[in-house]
Amino acid sequence: MSYTFSADDPIFVAHRRGKMAVTSTVPLSSRDDLSIAYTPGVAQVCLAIADNPALVNDYTWVSHTVAVVTDGSAVLGLGNIGPRAAMPVMEGKAVLFKSFGGVDAVPICLDTQDVDQIVATVTALAPSFGGINLEDISAPRCFEIERRLDEALSIPVFHDDQHGTAVVVLAALRNAARVLDRKLPDLRVVVVGAGAAGVAVTKMLIAGGVNGDDVVVCDSTGAIHRGRPGLSGAKAELAELTNAAGRSGDVADALRGADVLIGVSGGRIEEDALAGMAPHGIVFALANPTPEVHPDIASRYASVVATGRSDFPNQINNVLAFPGIFRGALDARATRITEGMKVAAAGAIAGVVATDLHPDAIVPSPLDPRVADAVASAVAEAAARDGVCRS
Amino acid sequence: MSYTFSADDPIFVAHRRGKMAVTSTVPLSSRDDLSIAYTPGVAQVCLAIADNPALVNDYTWVSHTVAVVTDGSAVLGLGNIGPRAAMPVMEGKAVLFKSFGGVDAVPICLDTQDVDQIVATVTALAPSFGGINLEDISAPRCFEIERRLDEALSIPVFHDDQHGTAVVVLAALRNAARVLDRKLPDLRVVVVGAGAAGVAVTKMLIAGGVNGDDVVVCDSTGAIHRGRPGLSGAKAELAELTNAAGRSGDVADALRGADVLIGVSGGRIEEDALAGMAPHGIVFALANPTPEVHPDIASRYASVVATGRSDFPNQINNVLAFPGIFRGALDARATRITEGMKVAAAGAIAGVVATDLHPDAIVPSPLDPRVADAVASAVAEAAARDGVCRS
Repeated sequence: MSYTFSADDPIFVAHRRGKMAVTSTVPLSSRDDLSIAYTPGVAQVCLAIADNPALVNDYTWVSHTVAVVTDGSAVLGLGNIGPRAAMPVMEGKAVLFKSFGGVDAVPICLDTQDVDQIVATVTALAPSFGGINLEDISAPRCFEIERRLDEALSIPVFHDDQHGTAVVVLAALRNAARVLDRKLPDLRVVVVGAGAAGVAVTKMLIAGGVNGDDVVVCDSTGAIHRGRPGLSGAKAELAELTNAAGRSGDVADALRGADVLIGVSGGRIEEDALAGMAPHGIVFALANPTPEVHPDIASRYASVVATGRSDFPNQINNVLAFPGIFRGALDARATRITEGMKVAAAGAIAGVVATDLHPDAIVPSPLDPRVADAVASAVAEAAARDGVCRS
Repeated sequence: MSYTFSADDPIFVAHRRGKMAVTSTVPLSSRDDLSIAYTPGVAQVCLAIADNPALVNDYTWVSHTVAVVTDGSAVLGLGNIGPRAAMPVMEGKAVLFKSFGGVDAVPICLDTQDVDQIVATVTALAPSFGGINLEDISAPRCFEIERRLDEALSIPVFHDDQHGTAVVVLAALRNAARVLDRKLPDLRVVVVGAGAAGVAVTKMLIAGGVNGDDVVVCDSTGAIHRGRPGLSGAKAELAELTNAAGRSGDVADALRGADVLIGVSGGRIEEDALAGMAPHGIVFALANPTPEVHPDIASRYASVVATGRSDFPNQINNVLAFPGIFRGALDARATRITEGMKVAAAGAIAGVVATDLHPDAIVPSPLDPRVADAVASAVAEAAARDGVCRS
């Protein structure tokens, strides 16, 4: 991807000195103010928390604050550009957390790409935060990092590139199916891309009602099936969960007769391949900024088309999910984010536009103020149902 | 120290949900706003930084943001209460950074007290911040942690319990000497306490003009001198820097004929011991909340008395130093904080009240808005002089 640096460019002007600030929520203008917010008054609060650690949630900002953690290894579609170059994205994420979910968020860009060191670092700083949003960490490292942190910590850990995307895809697919008068268990689905997003989308769709037997996931060498040699880790797991018929071949083979294409590969899918899909299908081409297939072309073969872009209808945008998911998890004092909470989030996103469905309006606008509240409520309820709330 | 927890107590009311928040400094209310602050626009900024890492200082919040890092091992005078109970203090520090120095600060409370792990963790998260303020880490671990981080990182690292205290003590001693028409090199000084603050205060006073030969540092077993067996680390270093006459004995012995007592021990100093000091002396009894000797008693034997408390004259408060020191270091893009920068900070603090000196007004009020600006300018100039500014 090319760029031109110019200090006068409106984008660079907007990012000058960053996009966020810390503010005090207590007065600090008199000696009395200082003696309450700082010494000697603050010692009372410290002692109370030392006696009863749960009070940290009531008397510090921890319970409404999330760390947005990256190692800069897979930033947007730009690849491994490192922690410093990743910071503008993490700041952007942090301010979206605040603006849409009322969640305070702090960008943490790590100067290591070693899995053990990342796990150790995030574990060490965890008491400072109410949740950990992992971001732009490359696959397959991201799976192990998230799993180990989820086991080690008693606060929510959520890799947004996986689960945020997956939640919004499930929401969009539910509404796309409704608009076409189809049921999720009846759809044949092809997921193109078996990285962080592809793996999570596949699992989420199955958790949300799609029949795993009828899902085929393709990576760069074609369809993943149980008979394919050399599969390990997340891909071996996908082979067990999907493709009961053991379909092999390339993307065009997989798409023949399929109802749904979900592209999360960053690659390109040819028009010829789409031509083989069943009629009245669904295409989500989510690579950013260049969708796997242009939406105008996809529309020739599918009745509902979505992308990741704001300049076409049906934008699949993670901002519909992560602010409300963390808001709900923090409000519920959840110790983790369960499958049930993610499915509930998808239902809430879909529900916001359920009464006004249209092939070009299967998901709410990213700016729709109803979304985060609806998601937060649904997630908090699911957390209680799933029994993961701290007492 | 005792406390009573009551949710209705004004202190607990003030600390409810913590004392700080994150805010966005960019608009996020339209699709255009999102496409500038987040994708796709943000990718331009990421690519520019990937090409030229120095741009991270211009186009992220890193250059005006400090991490306030603790392991909770020596919080205020409360001891080793751990990272969660330390959070109210770190938040307080963070909001003081902002209110007094315009520095954004993020509290980071670490779930480890292992020196290697602390160094590794702070090193890993360093790209996220423009400076590291270490806080409430017990001695002697704090010396090694600061030294190793200072070596490893190219951003300022500053243990406030050591150097913030030392800077304000030097400022106060300069003005106390002036008010008494004495010169620093002529003063006989006794420092009681050889922990983090005692070590740093002693070094700072020598760097600022006190004659090391005429300083005696006492720890809990008495005067530190070259002939004392079993000295190691920071105390061995102090023995080399101070007490040329090799004075031994207890605090009362050390104080006999001394001009200056600086208490940073948290212990108690008897009135009898003060009685042996030279006339027209200076007593700084800085233990908080209970000074080593009550200021009313100290006033019987000394002409200038200071404490750490806001309810007596001459409050030695670190807030006079750290916001301006970091503001100046960040403005100058300093890679570290030198002795020269600390001495300059002390001079600036002293200078603010230099034209209006009085035995009961040797330091500015912690609320004096002139202080941070004066300190920041002096520190930035000293950084340039010392050649530690990034190009």
